[in-house]
Amino acid sequence: MTMIAYVNGSYAPMRDAQVSIEDRGYQFSDGIYEVCLCIAGRYWDFDGHLTRMERSLRELRMDAPMSRDALQIVMGQLVRRNGLKDALVYIQATRGVAPRNHVFPPADTPTALVMTAKRFDLDGSDAIAAKGVGVITQPDIRWGRADIKSISLLPNLLAKQAAKDVGAAEAWLVRDGAVTEGSSSNAWIVDRDGALVTHPKGFEILGGITRETALSCAAELQIKVHERAFTVAEARDASEAFITSATNLVMPVITIDGAPVGNGAPGPVALRLREAYKLRARQA
Amino acid sequence: MTMIAYVNGSYAPMRDAQVSIEDRGYQFSDGIYEVCLCIAGRYWDFDGHLTRMERSLRELRMDAPMSRDALQIVMGQLVRRNGLKDALVYIQATRGVAPRNHVFPPADTPTALVMTAKRFDLDGSDAIAAKGVGVITQPDIRWGRADIKSISLLPNLLAKQAAKDVGAAEAWLVRDGAVTEGSSSNAWIVDRDGALVTHPKGFEILGGITRETALSCAAELQIKVHERAFTVAEARDASEAFITSATNLVMPVITIDGAPVGNGAPGPVALRLREAYKLRARQA
Repeated sequence: MTMIAYVNGSYAPMRDAQVSIEDRGYQFSDGIYEVCLCIAGRYWDFDGHLTRMERSLRELRMDAPMSRDALQIVMGQLVRRNGLKDALVYIQATRGVAPRNHVFPPADTPTALVMTAKRFDLDGSDAIAAKGVGVITQPDIRWGRADIKSISLLPNLLAKQAAKDVGAAEAWLVRDGAVTEGSSSNAWIVDRDGALVTHPKGFEILGGITRETALSCAAELQIKVHERAFTVAEARDASEAFITSATNLVMPVITIDGAPVGNGAPGPVALRLREAYKLRARQA
Repeated sequence: MTMIAYVNGSYAPMRDAQVSIEDRGYQFSDGIYEVCLCIAGRYWDFDGHLTRMERSLRELRMDAPMSRDALQIVMGQLVRRNGLKDALVYIQATRGVAPRNHVFPPADTPTALVMTAKRFDLDGSDAIAAKGVGVITQPDIRWGRADIKSISLLPNLLAKQAAKDVGAAEAWLVRDGAVTEGSSSNAWIVDRDGALVTHPKGFEILGGITRETALSCAAELQIKVHERAFTVAEARDASEAFITSATNLVMPVITIDGAPVGNGAPGPVALRLREAYKLRARQA
């Protein structure tokens, strides 16, 4: 089945879903995105995603493409028109179409908006989670505003591909000795006392929505959390490690640069957190 | 007149010049570009641009979209079909169209190629050069591979706009106290001994083609050059300052963060270099 996309006011089959070559997203990576889950007809943490999207737009001095209510209507349309139940909705907003010029286009240039939806299965990564995944470490050479969820993702792609090249699922990015986050996920370890450790929010990392929910699940499960930077050596010496993202949920990490973490199997804390997270998503 | 663009094998009027929303350039800034000048029917430093383009592609592990000869044919077609004489040709290559996924698409995914051309006047910036321009300084928060001419340009846009906001023409990017380069140009000063100073090549700056030609013109004019990093304080204390880029050629800088450089007027060294550069472009 051909999927239907939303492109600047129209719904179009994917093969006709096109944007101008002068879209500033295409020529300059001048835009932002969000990936939202729709579980059992409900938008999972819709407010969190939209609040972050509005922040990204504000930080880049872009106008919102439409209201929250209108966005939710388009999301609903996309899910319906594509015959989906549980879905992953991708939202991309760029600073519109204008003759190529580094400076911002005239203020009345409309923000461009593209959205797609595809099937998502909350249990789809269970088999992988049962085995755990490997991560490698890579230098964090991204720009200084990783907190903005921009489409300027080239360093992330290169890190992710470097991971894939050696059969790993993710690359953990290392700056000044500390693991900041993964190329498309947040990075966590469980220390020898059973407490979670993850990089604090700031310009260095994207404030992940799944990260926030995982923090909240941890509080509910009375698991202690330290929001502080951790080193690669600490991670290798940790009891457990895992990553969080909208598509991976909570995913156990069993090796770092090929060396086993803990006993080399998915850890109990990560698996408990994963279950708690899924339960919440279902009850949202 | 509607301009004609080249888009993945076809020539199309600009309003129909579109790419898929799944072009990795649009979703990930996974691509590179070049801006070449065609002066009096000849491609000015074509080999330099193509060599750099091939290097950018190689560094990102992308396949060349077509041969140099084929590229030159398309460039010629674009100049002709748009009725241009002296032209600025924009070339953008991306890692093709594929369902959104950070890892590289299958190896047989064709590199996507878009090219446009517009009128260029070698004397077009003379009036501005006669007065000189102002630059401001901004923190260099770009990623660690500024030497790759990628379309991942968001920090460059923000710096350029910050300059425009205060009536300046360019932002000089400062990392660890040193001026690396401008947001879309290379940065130069003339020291008290009349020698040129500009940041050496490396991961921190784009090896500008105009920069290379300016170096060669300087050698011809027997002007000494130091390829080394310089500080903002040095720049403020310099005799002259200027920027180089394909569109600006050699452009005198008369203020840095509002403070005059030298006597606050375009300097003789910059103007001599500009003339030498234009002469070469005409004789190429």
